[in-house]
Parts: sequence; structure tokens; C-alpha cells
Amino acid sequence: MQQTMPHLPSACEASRQVRSGELDPVDLVEQCLAAVDRYDESIRAWVGVSRVVALRHAERIASARARGKDLGPLGGVPIGIKDIIDVAGLPTRAGYPLRGDRAAPVDAVLVTRLRRAGAIVLGKTVTTQFACFDPSPTRNPWDPELRHSPGGSSSGSAAAVAAGMSPVTIGTQTGGSLVRPSSYCGVAAMKPTFGTVPIDGIVPVAHRLDHPGPIARTVEDLHLILGVISDLPVEELLEPALPPRLGLVGDFYMTAAEPRVRQAVEAALDKLCFAEATLEEVALPPSFREVHRMHGRIMAVEAAAYHRAQFLEQRDSYGPNLRSMLEEGIATTVPEYEEAIVHQRRFRREIQPMLVAVDALVMPATDTTAPARLDTTGPSKFQAPWSYAGAPVVSIPCGLAEDGMPVALQLVGRSGEDFQLLRTARWCERQIEFAARPPLARKENEPR
Amino acid sequence: MQQTMPHLPSACEASRQVRSGELDPVDLVEQCLAAVDRYDESIRAWVGVSRVVALRHAERIASARARGKDLGPLGGVPIGIKDIIDVAGLPTRAGYPLRGDRAAPVDAVLVTRLRRAGAIVLGKTVTTQFACFDPSPTRNPWDPELRHSPGGSSSGSAAAVAAGMSPVTIGTQTGGSLVRPSSYCGVAAMKPTFGTVPIDGIVPVAHRLDHPGPIARTVEDLHLILGVISDLPVEELLEPALPPRLGLVGDFYMTAAEPRVRQAVEAALDKLCFAEATLEEVALPPSFREVHRMHGRIMAVEAAAYHRAQFLEQRDSYGPNLRSMLEEGIATTVPEYEEAIVHQRRFRREIQPMLVAVDALVMPATDTTAPARLDTTGPSKFQAPWSYAGAPVVSIPCGLAEDGMPVALQLVGRSGEDFQLLRTARWCERQIEFAARPPLARKENEPR
Repeated sequence: MQQTMPHLPSACEASRQVRSGELDPVDLVEQCLAAVDRYDESIRAWVGVSRVVALRHAERIASARARGKDLGPLGGVPIGIKDIIDVAGLPTRAGYPLRGDRAAPVDAVLVTRLRRAGAIVLGKTVTTQFACFDPSPTRNPWDPELRHSPGGSSSGSAAAVAAGMSPVTIGTQTGGSLVRPSSYCGVAAMKPTFGTVPIDGIVPVAHRLDHPGPIARTVEDLHLILGVISDLPVEELLEPALPPRLGLVGDFYMTAAEPRVRQAVEAALDKLCFAEATLEEVALPPSFREVHRMHGRIMAVEAAAYHRAQFLEQRDSYGPNLRSMLEEGIATTVPEYEEAIVHQRRFRREIQPMLVAVDALVMPATDTTAPARLDTTGPSKFQAPWSYAGAPVVSIPCGLAEDGMPVALQLVGRSGEDFQLLRTARWCERQIEFAARPPLARKENEPR
Repeated sequence: MQQTMPHLPSACEASRQVRSGELDPVDLVEQCLAAVDRYDESIRAWVGVSRVVALRHAERIASARARGKDLGPLGGVPIGIKDIIDVAGLPTRAGYPLRGDRAAPVDAVLVTRLRRAGAIVLGKTVTTQFACFDPSPTRNPWDPELRHSPGGSSSGSAAAVAAGMSPVTIGTQTGGSLVRPSSYCGVAAMKPTFGTVPIDGIVPVAHRLDHPGPIARTVEDLHLILGVISDLPVEELLEPALPPRLGLVGDFYMTAAEPRVRQAVEAALDKLCFAEATLEEVALPPSFREVHRMHGRIMAVEAAAYHRAQFLEQRDSYGPNLRSMLEEGIATTVPEYEEAIVHQRRFRREIQPMLVAVDALVMPATDTTAPARLDTTGPSKFQAPWSYAGAPVVSIPCGLAEDGMPVALQLVGRSGEDFQLLRTARWCERQIEFAARPPLARKENEPR
């Protein structure tokens, strides 16, 4: 059984139903807009929605369907775009107040690909400032009191899908910005192999680490969106012939996770083993110890290269976390940066034997459930090693912890084998059958 | 020692000299245009050159330099673009007479990246019809009588570099369309890992096989252009710490090559061994036997999917070779196509052990030197297996055969390790020291 939010179909269901005529794309967009109207005053997942343009686009798709035209693999599917990614005609604010309202002249390459496939851009989703660590105003839909972090930096993209405001969204990850908010918000995400999705038209964080990717409720939807934004030949999402071999990353991941996360993950792993997956412990290579520090160094230096001039002029407009990272980046010497690049190459090489031995590595996606505070988006230590390695990652919700907040499983595959990883993730999703839904945040004046 | 054509600097030299002020980018463009004026009436490498626009662009770069601006890694470097790739404002004729003169509204993604890096688009280079097998009017600059094929389908891109009309050009390869013409014309080429360079804005041949890539005179230039069009973090083109381990593909490649090609390749391999490269024979996997047939099937089916409607209406405007391929594609059944896709996946898997054991595979790039006839662009059997596998390929000229025509070495690396392969190719290029220059074709009324 596949989890579905009340009322809103998944992207795969929507595109099938629009194609067959069961679903009018105008109704679907209106349904998304109604959810935005109802919940977004409290959730704050959207910078803005393109009400008029999205409805007009849906009407064009409905009429193209009536004339028997091919609608494309995403024909009529609404999608939200993280607000560091250019959408022609809309400003790219990147969570930074001084960027102003100048409209982007052209779409980012991945947005061009989404539109060509028939997707309807619903609007721009909230990002933390320049996709870094200073929390955004977005709230986590799983907490009725709205006191939990949605994670970052793709806060709005994760919360919008969790709250049923869009079936799918696009986010980006430099450390853990796709997997962490998706895990905290109980939805699925994919960080593709480094370089698979073009970054043209996206405000950069760090050139050696930035990955755009999809957020959705199901692995099937991640697969559909990845095919479009990567422009690679899509392989069908067939069941694997045999239950997968999984490599459990015990050291660091299972030991550093808080007990309630570990319990939820262990319960999920039991379901996989019960379904005859092979589970073996794998050991991280020695270079793992330095990953967090070296990842931070590359990120700081490359972000500083981009921001330097503006930062020196507008320092006070930058959030405190980003400010201290940029200061670190500016102070880093070239040999220190080179050391990190050499280390990154070494780590990529050293994880190969581990990855070759199994279908996927498996581990908790985050060390804790969403923190019950709003002054942090949580740490990236569980996600950043795979951004650093460039290997593909899929995270899927796998249960609720004692605090009622979702926990996710993180699966890591071999670089370039994104579709194989999705197949393994789909198998795991089926065994886990996560079907919980967030107790959607009520408006303040609504009765509880 | 690095080969350089008379007068025209390499792209790396040009960008360094423009940056330092030694070279005026306007002079460089004028030099390219002068070579076009002098040779292209006979060579026919260009569909058209953008004289006015290119000169104006060069002036802007000169003035940006004067104001101390950063010019980008390709600042002032002229480049030719194969005429199946969109350049805003110019028609994309794709070698097909009925496509008309409607200008492309926007640049292909790789052209956008080239311009952002400071490159000057010199014009569009001749392609065979729809980048397939029917010969174009282009001639091979190595034959003073102009009776030899330049190869295809990137005929103009290879001939333009060989004749010193542009330091670098962009081509595409579905079977052997980058490596074969470059080999026949005595220049270097790279087919990157499948999916590394976006194909948006390029007339497709076959979605599972199409690869855009650079043609140049040196490996250093291939490296420079790949960094820009892939948008991947560039790794420096350092010398490898040790001489590389090379896997010689003896069966098929060395046995099917004509004796004069084999001799030239063996002489080049001797130079590499003399410089202490390790050379070991490797064996192709059993699935190699079906590669040619299955590659042809995927190409025919996917080309037919794109051309079908137009082909049924305009059949007589299609070249005879393309026509018979499209007919084959239209007649292929779905299970036959599926069989080929499964086979492609199998071949990709089966070549892994061979690729993991060495730094690069090495073999002749073509079975013969450029054929002394104009009714064929030569066979793709030596190049197509690596388009099919998606693995990165670099070809470098390695000597002249008895007939005075160039021979090239083809190096194949592991998918995703394009920069490592370039490093190995650079080492080989240094040992081989190919420095021959084509006896440039004279105009008909010029004295010999």
C-alpha cells in the first residue's frame, strides 16, 4: 500500500489521471492552491504562488489533452521550486532581503526540463538564507504547536510536500539540505549523483558540493522527477529480482543516533530482514574521520568566493551562521583548500569497496527527530558525507519516534547508478509501508 | 613538445595571451576568419561564420580586459559549433535542406556555458545530414587533392580545427562522430562520459547514445573545454605520478585494423613502453560480439522515434543511408528494442573488470586511415562500442601511415573519471610528440 495524503494525488497518479481524463489539471492546481490558502499562513512554506499563471497553464494542458496532444511525462503535475532556482518572470530571492525584485530573465535548466515535460510551476518555496544554516520562517507540519524545525535549507520544499500543498518540489543539497528537511517532515527525497542535474540558473553555495534534487511522498515520484531533470534515459522502476543486499553503517551512524531514532530505524530494518533483505555491517574508511571538517572547509571557501564582495559591503544583512562561515572561508589559505580537495578525492576512492559489496548502504537519515526549537535547522553530519562523496542518496520515511515526529532511512548507492538505487529504495518502501500523515497545523483562530 | 598549427595558438595559449595582453582577441578572430577565407572554399568546414557578431564580441572582450575585468577561462577563445546545436540568432540546419532559416531563439545549454566562460562563437560547422551517415560536402585537409573523406558526422568541426580555422570546436558522437573525423583529420577529440554534457538545445540522434564533446589540437585544450561544458569542478591536468598502466585491446581492434594503421599504432605504443608505461593485453567480454548490431538497433529505433512523422512526409529529402536506418527503426518491434537495452546494460557491466584493472584501455581509433573516397564517412565499428558503453574516450593523433594520412590512438576510461583519463592521455601525447601538419588544400586556381 502506498501512502497518499488526503485528497492530493502523487505526481505519478496525477499524470496518469490527467492523461486518461479522470482528473482535470485545473482542479488539481486549485486543490494545491486551496491547501496553500488553508495552511500556509502558519506553515510558511511558500515565498509566493503563481496563482494566475499556474491556472492558465493548467487550462492550456486541459485543452491540449482535449485535442489529443502528448502531454509529456509530467503533463499537468504541479511543482514547487526552491527560491534559489531561477524561474523566468519571478524574482530569485534566495532568502536574502537585499536581493530585490528583479525577475529572472530565463528559467534554470532544470526548470526548462520540467516545463518541457509538462509540469506546472506552482510557485517558489522558502529557503534558508542563501541555502545555508540560518533558519527560515517555515514550520514543521508534524507539530500542531508549530514549535519544531522543518530542517533546512530546503525547508519550504519539504514542508510543502508534507502539508499536501504540492505533490512534488525541487530542493538542493550542499550538506544535508534535501535529506534532513525531508526526514524531519516525513517525506522522501533524492540527492542524485553529483553532476547529474545541471546547476545552471541556481544561486550557488559551493561548486564542488551542490546537488539539486526532488522531494516527494513516494519513491515512484522521485524516479519520475529524476528522469526529467537529469535528462538521462529512464530505466523502469521494476522490482529487483531478489531482495537487496544492504550494508548497515553501524559505527558513527547507529551509535551517534539518539535512542528513539535508533529504535525506529531498527524496527524498519527488521521489516526489511523479515522480507529477506541481506543485512551486513560495513565499516567506514579511515578518511571518514576528517569528512565533516573538510566538507565544511570546501563549503566555506567556495561560498566565500561567491559572496566575498557583497559580504564585505553588506555584512550586517547576512545571518549569523552564514556570516561566521564566510569569515572562515575568507581566512582559509590555498594550501588548506587544496588539502580538503585531495581529501575529498581520497574519501571518494576509499568508499568504493564498501559500495561495490552491496546494493545500497543503509543508515538513519538524521541523528535526532526534528528539534523542538526554531533557532537551528539541525546538524548536517549524517547527510554531508554523501554530498561530499557525490554518491546518490534516497531517503524514505520509516516510522514515527516516541515524540510523534517522523524518522527516515537513508540509502546510499554507487555514483552513476541512480536508477538502481531507486529500485532498491522502492523495494524498501514497500516493506516498510509508512502511512502516517501529519496532524496538519491549524490556523490560529481555528478550534483545535 | 606540443603540436601547434602555423600562426593559430591553441585555446589554452590564446586564453593566457589574451589575459596577459599579449594577444588582442580581435586579431585572433581576424586570423581565424582569414584562414576561413583562404581555405574554406575548398575544405567546406563551415555552414557559415558570424563575421560581424564575432568581431564585435572580440572588441567587447578587449575592452573588458582593458578595464581589468575577469574574462573567464575561455576569454577571447574562438569556437565553432556543429550545426545540430542551437546558437541563438542562427538557424540550426542539421544538414537537412528543408529545415529552413528560422533562427534558434536561445542557445543550447552547452553554448550558454561556453559564452559565460568568455568563448566567442565563430560560426556553425558542417554536419552530415542529421548527424548520421550520408557524407557532407566537407573535405579532408590532409589530402592536397581533396579526395579523402574527413569522416563524419562532425566533419566540419574536425576539418576546421585541422585546417587552423578555429583552435577548438564542438561536435557530437552517437556512434563514432567525434573520434572518427578527428582521427581521419589528425586532431584530438573527447567523448565524455554519457550524461556529463547536457544535450538540451541539440537536435537528437538517439537519446541513449548521444554525447556532445570537444575537438582540439591538444589534450590540454580538450581539458579546458570539458571543464566549461560539463560544469564539473575542474581537476588540474597534472602529470600522473607514475607512467600509466594501459590495457591493449588486441582482439578485434588490432586484428581488424589494416596493416598500415596497426604499424603506426605499434610504433606509438613502443614510445609509451619506452617511457615505462605498462602495457598488458586485455580481452573483450563475450557481449562485445553483439555490440555493433544492438548499438545500430537502439540508434535506428530512437532516430525513427524523432523523425517518423517528418520522414513519412519528406522521405525523398532524406539521404539514402539515413533513409534505410529510419526504415529499419520503424520496423523494429518493442521486444527487439528492449532486448537491445538489456544488452547495453549487460555490456556496461561486463567491461567493468577490464576498466578497473588499468588506467585506460588503448587501441586504434579507426580501422583504416581516411578512405580515399567521398561516398562514405567510414565505418563506426571501432568507436561505437564506447558510445554504447557510455565510457569516456580521448583520441589523439599518433603518427602518419604510409599513405601520408594521420592515425590516432583511442583511450577509454571509467565512467565518471573523465579528468583522470585526460591525465593519462596527456602523458601519452607527450611521449608520442605528434607534430605533423596538414599540407593545406590550395584553392583551385592557386599554383601548386
